[in-house]
Amino acid sequence: MTRLNVTQKLIDAHLLSGHMVAGEEIGLAIDQTLTQDATGTLVMLEFEAMQLDRVRTELSAQYVDHNLFQEDFKNPDDHLFLQSACRKFGVWFSPAGNGVSHPVHQERFGIPGKTLVGSDSHTPAAGALGMFATGAGGLEVALAMAGKPLYLKMPDVVGVELTGELPDWVSAKDVVLEMLRRFDVKGGVGKVFEYYGPGLDSLSAMDRHVIANMGTEMGATTSVFPSDGEVKRFLEQQERGDDWQELLADDGADYDEHVSLDLSTLEPLIALPSSPGNVRPIHEVAGEEIYQAYIGSSANPGLRDFAVPAMMVEGRQVPPGVSFDVNPTSRQILEILSNESYLTRLIRAGARLHQAGCNGCIGMGQAPASGRNSLRTVPRNFPGRSGTPEDRVFLCSPETATASVLTGKITDPRDLDMDYPRFREPEQVAVNREMLLAPAEDSGLVELIKGPNVKSLPAFKPIPASFTGPVLLKLGDDVSTDEIMPAGAEVLPLRSNIPAIAEHVFRAVDGDFSQRAHDLQGDGFFIIAGKNYGQGSSREHAAIAPRYLGLRAVCALSYGRIHWQNLANFGVVPLTFTDPEDLEAIEQGDELALDDIIAALDSGEDITLHNRTRDQRYTMRHDLSRRQIDMIRHGSLIELVRQET
Amino acid sequence: MTRLNVTQKLIDAHLLSGHMVAGEEIGLAIDQTLTQDATGTLVMLEFEAMQLDRVRTELSAQYVDHNLFQEDFKNPDDHLFLQSACRKFGVWFSPAGNGVSHPVHQERFGIPGKTLVGSDSHTPAAGALGMFATGAGGLEVALAMAGKPLYLKMPDVVGVELTGELPDWVSAKDVVLEMLRRFDVKGGVGKVFEYYGPGLDSLSAMDRHVIANMGTEMGATTSVFPSDGEVKRFLEQQERGDDWQELLADDGADYDEHVSLDLSTLEPLIALPSSPGNVRPIHEVAGEEIYQAYIGSSANPGLRDFAVPAMMVEGRQVPPGVSFDVNPTSRQILEILSNESYLTRLIRAGARLHQAGCNGCIGMGQAPASGRNSLRTVPRNFPGRSGTPEDRVFLCSPETATASVLTGKITDPRDLDMDYPRFREPEQVAVNREMLLAPAEDSGLVELIKGPNVKSLPAFKPIPASFTGPVLLKLGDDVSTDEIMPAGAEVLPLRSNIPAIAEHVFRAVDGDFSQRAHDLQGDGFFIIAGKNYGQGSSREHAAIAPRYLGLRAVCALSYGRIHWQNLANFGVVPLTFTDPEDLEAIEQGDELALDDIIAALDSGEDITLHNRTRDQRYTMRHDLSRRQIDMIRHGSLIELVRQET
Repeated sequence: MTRLNVTQKLIDAHLLSGHMVAGEEIGLAIDQTLTQDATGTLVMLEFEAMQLDRVRTELSAQYVDHNLFQEDFKNPDDHLFLQSACRKFGVWFSPAGNGVSHPVHQERFGIPGKTLVGSDSHTPAAGALGMFATGAGGLEVALAMAGKPLYLKMPDVVGVELTGELPDWVSAKDVVLEMLRRFDVKGGVGKVFEYYGPGLDSLSAMDRHVIANMGTEMGATTSVFPSDGEVKRFLEQQERGDDWQELLADDGADYDEHVSLDLSTLEPLIALPSSPGNVRPIHEVAGEEIYQAYIGSSANPGLRDFAVPAMMVEGRQVPPGVSFDVNPTSRQILEILSNESYLTRLIRAGARLHQAGCNGCIGMGQAPASGRNSLRTVPRNFPGRSGTPEDRVFLCSPETATASVLTGKITDPRDLDMDYPRFREPEQVAVNREMLLAPAEDSGLVELIKGPNVKSLPAFKPIPASFTGPVLLKLGDDVSTDEIMPAGAEVLPLRSNIPAIAEHVFRAVDGDFSQRAHDLQGDGFFIIAGKNYGQGSSREHAAIAPRYLGLRAVCALSYGRIHWQNLANFGVVPLTFTDPEDLEAIEQGDELALDDIIAALDSGEDITLHNRTRDQRYTMRHDLSRRQIDMIRHGSLIELVRQET
Repeated sequence: MTRLNVTQKLIDAHLLSGHMVAGEEIGLAIDQTLTQDATGTLVMLEFEAMQLDRVRTELSAQYVDHNLFQEDFKNPDDHLFLQSACRKFGVWFSPAGNGVSHPVHQERFGIPGKTLVGSDSHTPAAGALGMFATGAGGLEVALAMAGKPLYLKMPDVVGVELTGELPDWVSAKDVVLEMLRRFDVKGGVGKVFEYYGPGLDSLSAMDRHVIANMGTEMGATTSVFPSDGEVKRFLEQQERGDDWQELLADDGADYDEHVSLDLSTLEPLIALPSSPGNVRPIHEVAGEEIYQAYIGSSANPGLRDFAVPAMMVEGRQVPPGVSFDVNPTSRQILEILSNESYLTRLIRAGARLHQAGCNGCIGMGQAPASGRNSLRTVPRNFPGRSGTPEDRVFLCSPETATASVLTGKITDPRDLDMDYPRFREPEQVAVNREMLLAPAEDSGLVELIKGPNVKSLPAFKPIPASFTGPVLLKLGDDVSTDEIMPAGAEVLPLRSNIPAIAEHVFRAVDGDFSQRAHDLQGDGFFIIAGKNYGQGSSREHAAIAPRYLGLRAVCALSYGRIHWQNLANFGVVPLTFTDPEDLEAIEQGDELALDDIIAALDSGEDITLHNRTRDQRYTMRHDLSRRQIDMIRHGSLIELVRQET
């Protein structure tokens, strides 16, 4: 009998097509879906376009946690649309004020042994409960809601053996920062990190959430933890003990790769600006003045992530001119913080309390001042994501953020003259599910509410048989979806409105990109990039909005997994250089051509890219499946599904 | 011996020039100033331009409560600039998170018998403590900080005799709504409302703040309450008993006008969209569905304004799809709400908790969805102020807002099957002054921090001796400064940057106004308007930004007091029609001319306005003082002061 690890058990139990051979495309049955508001409006419009009545998952949940700044009608209109769509289509609705999707989903809906796909790149956080949870483009989530499988490449499973126990002042965030120090932002591509070993005993379910959440920053497909006694304790605390089932690796199960991590050897770590992989021991930057310390977000959402800072600041004071921004995770956590006097301690010490939600983590407020250092417990510090161009955002644990806000300087919390506050998880918490709205029993009676900012999806024509167009933009390595399609308060409200949001594509990188696209004659254009193109957030707008402007093909050295899929979903051809020197040879403005493209893709052979400007020919490969080639043939996956049903 | 009312005593004790004869210009010594961040950056730049080292007031305080959405570097850079300016110039600094200026000022700094001028139109709220407190343009506040008198027209004093006691479910907000029902938004122009009589006994100092705050909506110069035993109790509660002094009207003191208000006859009232003067009994609109109920703001800032709603919602639930937005007034109130479990009750019932500050009251978030009803305890509901064009904002008490959010419909709170929750003011509260920053002892060591969004003031040239220009815009009655110079999250961050903010002038009224102004050849243009031009907020940007675009003269039937002063301060000639039919005769685009304008103003006679397009001549008057004519002669008050010193 084959001995399976947890990841293999999860995949095996949901495998609809393919084989569990690393690199092979597999189709998985999806039990649950998660959407947030910034991606969810489009998911609901896509689901509507498929003309289905109700979701076919066991559970789907929609959260409003991103677009909380209602500066005009756009966001509130979107929220009303989402609420009506949820009632109609059979989706749970978590309104503004309920909090961040990932921790709320873990508390209210996550079930060990289930699969979850979410239109948010941090969906893998649910791996903390022993789920197979992954982020995908909104369209793939809409398909999962429609009962279709999720297709992905069978990942390598990296077994991460945890031993020892964390020292005082070192916490879960430092564990994942150590992983990032080792693997950087590309080291997890095509992999699942499965954590096991005796070190798990001292990591709570929410600690595991921290680690699984930021597995995304390594490019991992997901991260997986076993469902053990700690998961049982967590679900019982959340009044959901019945949802627990044990899920452990078989004795003697093996992994494709092995990593060892002795927790007792870890020290407080910090990721320097402006990459989560830029990890250093704190002493290398200790003493630098800070403008801001920020706690909260899906990367440190647990009660302990606020309780420990509250105990640290008790009787102390944030110095003048330093901003201590507290971002409660959820309605429930806020209520507990208020009840247990944690909130009082934070406020009295000088904290500025924000509403429950993603807030500054997604560029929605709390931007730092020009040239000033900001320490954050959030998962990412890509350039400008805070809202301030050329920002200086550091990633660290709540302990480090709080130690630093008390001194006004980047501070190793071990250097404070303070006993480490011991936090014990309460047996029971005041569960708050009152504002979670169940779907309507009778969908037929519910009408969709579409305000003026909710626009139908544009239809996309298939790529011409042979396609010639200019390189409208040439980019370097590690271009994130934040750079392709910025977030922030001005742009996020336009996510249900493709023509409007397309004006912002590559805005920070290349101010007149959309204007050049509009001015272009012909069938469209190419984008050329280096390694890891489209890393980061799963936002499908990073594919759909450039496609709306005329993007037909990307040529890169490698891709972020989700973005690569999103490109294919919306009919953009993603090609990979076989020789990196070819990339060097191409300049922005060069005229490129692909001949008889669909046939070339179908052939499975390498593809010739013709640079007409330089009269050069490059050998490109593609990794598209038959199904993905079909999407490109039809113009988009939506067209394909529409013609299938 | 003359018997004086409280208003006269306050004025008499601070009179530097003029006589207490209604309508005559008087100069008052100013003890305290108040600035908020949206107006304060310009005040500090103006103060800097005057080249003084330190403020010459007894106390000046700067609050950060408006521009709390840090979507990029602009707001946080402004906050750092303000903090540095405060340290340098001798001003107390209340950073983001401390709360709304008016109630914090009342708690921490207000002193009976003192004068206060603030660059915020709701500064009169401090009248609750027996202060003479008034809003003014930022430049006048900068002058007050420089030790110069505040000039204003001696107001009529309206004595408002309060008798009886408020019935259950009727509170201070209903008192001022009843005043607005009687006086509307123009009925208080040139007046001070002085409240007296036995009805005061049941109105707490913060209840009086509610009434004094919204006296502004009637156009009043200010509102004044006596400093009695209740003010003593309030200051003792705030650990400032030593700051109390009694200030009562002399026995037999009289008033220019008389109003009687029997509190026991009042019922819950509501101001319909979109004017604070549009007041009706609730039963006229009861039953209309609501999208949102909003509590908080300087118009209902007291502990009781949150505690009573918390008691009302205990054990009850906000229905699905209705937004219950709770906006804590201040750090201190938030801490007390958290300590006393009021916060827990609100959150559990479904409230969405926002950061302490002005927030949606100034268009900074919480905009309602298109076409949906929003009930708010804020002071104003001018069209679009919420952020949503053609919004439907109603003004009401916390009791009415909470009753309505529980039913999902506009509801008279007396129709709830509930006992009226009795709130008793605690003897002591947890005073929180930790985050109030005192000025630096040694100003010389402090450097001003000017980020890229802080721009020097443009210099303004004097109006030409004879001036000809087109009517660039013709407007109706009651144009508010919100319409002239919008607030909201996009515009407010530009208040320290006049060239940038000028692009938004009249944007909602006339989308290409600023473009037309830029396209204009010549010396500038006229604006023509009806009654009460420039009502509402005191923002001087409503004068300075149109002036930057080329505004040289306004011709209207009447003016909002503060805006009229702001026009003169920045060298714009404000003229008044003597015959309303002349206004009818003028069309947008007409070419108007003023001959030998300074001499004409100096003469004190009526002024002839020549309509060259129609070959008509109109007789205009002006109410400018010698000093104001001097400002226009020099181009602006800043130029005048610069040449004086």
